Amino acid sequence: MNSPIKYELIKESSETKARLGKIHTPHGEIETPIFMPVGTRATVKAMTPEELKEINAQIILSNTYHLYLKPGHDIVEEAGGLHKFMNWDRPILTDSGGFQVFSLGNMRKINEDGVEFKSHIDGSKHFITPEKSIEIQNALGSDIMMAFDECVSYPSDWHYVKDSMERTTRWAKRCKDANKNPDKQAIFGIIQGGMYKDLREQSARELLELDFPGYAVGGLSVGEPADILMQVLDYTVPLMPADKPRYFMGAGSPDYLIELAIRGIDMADCVLPTRIARNGTVMTSRGKVVIRNAKHKRDFTPLDPECSCYACKNYSKAYIRHLFNVDEILGSRLATIHNLHFLIKLMEDLRESIREDRVLEFRRDFYLKYGGFDYLGKLDNYRL
Amino acid sequence: MNSPIKYELIKESSETKARLGKIHTPHGEIETPIFMPVGTRATVKAMTPEELKEINAQIILSNTYHLYLKPGHDIVEEAGGLHKFMNWDRPILTDSGGFQVFSLGNMRKINEDGVEFKSHIDGSKHFITPEKSIEIQNALGSDIMMAFDECVSYPSDWHYVKDSMERTTRWAKRCKDANKNPDKQAIFGIIQGGMYKDLREQSARELLELDFPGYAVGGLSVGEPADILMQVLDYTVPLMPADKPRYFMGAGSPDYLIELAIRGIDMADCVLPTRIARNGTVMTSRGKVVIRNAKHKRDFTPLDPECSCYACKNYSKAYIRHLFNVDEILGSRLATIHNLHFLIKLMEDLRESIREDRVLEFRRDFYLKYGGFDYLGKLDNYRL
Repeated sequence: MNSPIKYELIKESSETKARLGKIHTPHGEIETPIFMPVGTRATVKAMTPEELKEINAQIILSNTYHLYLKPGHDIVEEAGGLHKFMNWDRPILTDSGGFQVFSLGNMRKINEDGVEFKSHIDGSKHFITPEKSIEIQNALGSDIMMAFDECVSYPSDWHYVKDSMERTTRWAKRCKDANKNPDKQAIFGIIQGGMYKDLREQSARELLELDFPGYAVGGLSVGEPADILMQVLDYTVPLMPADKPRYFMGAGSPDYLIELAIRGIDMADCVLPTRIARNGTVMTSRGKVVIRNAKHKRDFTPLDPECSCYACKNYSKAYIRHLFNVDEILGSRLATIHNLHFLIKLMEDLRESIREDRVLEFRRDFYLKYGGFDYLGKLDNYRL
Repeated sequence: MNSPIKYELIKESSETKARLGKIHTPHGEIETPIFMPVGTRATVKAMTPEELKEINAQIILSNTYHLYLKPGHDIVEEAGGLHKFMNWDRPILTDSGGFQVFSLGNMRKINEDGVEFKSHIDGSKHFITPEKSIEIQNALGSDIMMAFDECVSYPSDWHYVKDSMERTTRWAKRCKDANKNPDKQAIFGIIQGGMYKDLREQSARELLELDFPGYAVGGLSVGEPADILMQVLDYTVPLMPADKPRYFMGAGSPDYLIELAIRGIDMADCVLPTRIARNGTVMTSRGKVVIRNAKHKRDFTPLDPECSCYACKNYSKAYIRHLFNVDEILGSRLATIHNLHFLIKLMEDLRESIREDRVLEFRRDFYLKYGGFDYLGKLDNYRL
């Protein structure tokens, strides 16, 4: 059977593991490395699909756990699937619900079959199995579905991580068997194993046997120090197939997105840019700006003079600060547009630097302006 | 001196006092009768200027009291005026601050010079005079400024209303004298006099002597029954000059907008459509719809099948209900776009019916579908 998801390698960096590629999906192509905005509840907060397209968002992520609870995947299915329900005709990736079951659900009990938990909204009791997760994602109709896994916390004991990782692999097999729409919806396997190299190796080896069309690195960004995260990636990414997309779950700061890409990651997502936007923090070419700060009261320049987004073309810091000071929705809208545009443009520039084989130069120049040069220089063996 | 605001009469209804016209302003023309969306704090809540243009908003209103307190009119002036600050290049009308001083300010004390009050935000003490109100509005740079008046509550004693109205007239003269930018910014006088015909007559007569380029009817929509409001209008509007715009302060329901227009009103504004939108109530050709209602859970039709707005073209009731259920900003955005589009389209259709001299037929057909037929039929002498 043909996979609905295909990875096309375009160019590899000679200095790093960064790679330029394309992922072909039933709803069009995406260029990698890519950042994926998160539309938790069938909407990227404060944005319309047209605004996402205006800033060149190529794919969005949505959350199985949240849509299962509200409005219910049956309603999304009746609407004609998530694309139609939310008016987005480009690719969608849905997570498995596993992460939220473990981080938001209460009183969870794991057994071989699945996880019982109580809804964080109303305390109602639910039981999610690998089959149920895929049933929900099939109803949503996402292009890329994620296998149902356990994301273990940090730090965790080797024996616990091993047991959990082996169960995650058995669950991945069940997810694959449960997919009722394999010619339109692909499943990505998730490599677990915590911070243990031998367990990451075992996880990758066993999941690769299941021949998923893409793989994610899970169980990172769970509170471990940045250098440990990067070490795990340094030995895990080479275990992943070169002819399939590699997805890192949960990174949305500019420095992490760059560090992941030079380690060979193709896709990443995070709520960070939209969440900090609604709190009035924006990312700019010179670092973060807290817009409520009194020093912007009479600052009639844009959020970022180097930015070409709708917010920067039309509004001043003084105006956007005013909007946040009086709790106006337009403030959240403008900051969200700006932050997502910033990360999407960052990835476009990063891809261009891979194409021209000057990734390390791009990275150094970015850190020198944005900040983080000293710290990030110690994370790895790439000289800045 | 030439007034920056000129009214052009295009056609009068033969059946009613409705009239089709154009108002020429320094930022372009507006067609009347018109509904003006309210942008209280230099933003029409949840909307961008481009979205307002997409639904054909021709003029917006903003609030002097709110902008004086935050961010401060000095900052708006430094930004280059309100048009530039908020990125809106079409006409703007600003109220005088009087209504908010009396409805929101605490501990207010009126004397001949002006009004002392405490800010509703931080309790700080302020003193607004007619000169100060115009100074603020000059700093904002609105096309139409309103004279500083006292809007008396309902019911009020004849003697109180007479004293207040006469002071409002003296204040109007002071406003006129205080205008530092008379060739770019016009002032409208506000006819007061409560529910007393003799006082309305006195107010109109004395204000007309000041030769403002437009007049408003103030002191209505303050809690009086609808039939009293209509009676006051029936005898007040004929006192107003036929060659100048007539503005009714505070009406935003479809029935009121129609009833005002057939009584000869050209302009009206209200926060109602945007406020109820954010609470999930939308106006449709068949009456109001409360979108959170469980009956819309599986309703995959638009808010209003007869509507061509962005929300109705792209989203279902089920989706918008979901957005409100999970408190997503996009819900408020879509409902706001819809409600403003609904009223602006209503006024377009109403203008067309004046042009074709079939206002009463238009009115009857609207009420038969929207509701309110029986009640509204009793309000006046126009047979439905």
